[in-house]
Amino acid sequence: MVRAAVFDAFGTLFDIHSLAAACEAAFPGRGEAINRLWRQKQLEYSWLRTALGRYRDFWGITGDALAYACGSLGCVLTDDIRARILAAYDSITAVPEASAALTSLRARGTGIHIFSNGTLAMLRTAARSTGLDALVDGYLSVDEAVRQYKPVPAAYHDVIRRLGAPAAEILFVSSNYFDVAGAKNVGFRVVWVNRSGAPPDALDLTPDHTLPDLTRVASL
Amino acid sequence: MVRAAVFDAFGTLFDIHSLAAACEAAFPGRGEAINRLWRQKQLEYSWLRTALGRYRDFWGITGDALAYACGSLGCVLTDDIRARILAAYDSITAVPEASAALTSLRARGTGIHIFSNGTLAMLRTAARSTGLDALVDGYLSVDEAVRQYKPVPAAYHDVIRRLGAPAAEILFVSSNYFDVAGAKNVGFRVVWVNRSGAPPDALDLTPDHTLPDLTRVASL
Repeated sequence: MVRAAVFDAFGTLFDIHSLAAACEAAFPGRGEAINRLWRQKQLEYSWLRTALGRYRDFWGITGDALAYACGSLGCVLTDDIRARILAAYDSITAVPEASAALTSLRARGTGIHIFSNGTLAMLRTAARSTGLDALVDGYLSVDEAVRQYKPVPAAYHDVIRRLGAPAAEILFVSSNYFDVAGAKNVGFRVVWVNRSGAPPDALDLTPDHTLPDLTRVASL
Repeated sequence: MVRAAVFDAFGTLFDIHSLAAACEAAFPGRGEAINRLWRQKQLEYSWLRTALGRYRDFWGITGDALAYACGSLGCVLTDDIRARILAAYDSITAVPEASAALTSLRARGTGIHIFSNGTLAMLRTAARSTGLDALVDGYLSVDEAVRQYKPVPAAYHDVIRRLGAPAAEILFVSSNYFDVAGAKNVGFRVVWVNRSGAPPDALDLTPDHTLPDLTRVASL
């Protein structure tokens, strides 16, 4: 039985590769490399700040990671270029099948929430930009209370508390394996969306289902 | 005043690039790519397992990360190849100036310890392989008691307790910025060895000194 469906945001519903275009426009020929390192550092900073006990919100971390990526690759990030690249988050796209998948779930009466490291402002902006806001019942951010990042158990326990549903009746969907591991670690029913055919990470936690994209989520 | 000098191991005293040769011998043309992803995943797993509360020792993580890197890059890791690549840790080399730098420190009467995520077996093997064992007074591993990885404060507090010295009188040397941040977070006097001219990570913590290699550590 599924009482609620909870989706990760960036990488799962929202296409972070769409940010590469803004990097490429600013630094021709380097867009992919910048975007890849930007994402890697964004996650790395979330894990390191959690370990250090030095929280900074995900929008702040996102800007920090962009600065690192550009600095590391020898690209000069002026305030103007920085603002233009970060503005790509305002027009982020959804993965192609997101709207149809959420529509199918709603047709079955399943409530839909987004649970993310991102701030509420980031989540609402992305949902509006992609038109998914009409299909989402609520937004949950680690920024609201826990102020530690995925995959710490406290972040997922807060979701359980706020949805008032047992962990085993929450269907959790993420394309990020560390997030799959974090959700499984507290007993959620977990779908790993493995678009790239990546190997699973060796974290002693495995998803209940693995799908190539969101299309068949509603059929679970 | 410096009561003790504490060095990080892998990347700081021991040259992890020397592992690339074993990767290259096993998978010609892919050695550098495998070694880079291997190291990235090794660190990632240490941070994620700490966040998840699912400790596994660093030798285990090191094997897991190698398997991920090979799988991700389409290289088939047989048991035999796996054993041969991991054996490179038994003959790891030191960074060129390590021996001279530790010798200078000892000549000033400063005790030298290695503090690492690695298991005691990994540390003793590497110290013997490089000949640095004759210059080292002791080995400290997160594996002995804390069983959480750098940069969690508990790992560094254990070093303070065991050395019986105030944090401000411990000179800590690392080439890994997350480790610099972790050491600074508990008040150590910290040297960042920045061999590649990388930008500092944005973690709100900065080293007391930055050096291009270990050569001048004794002069601090």
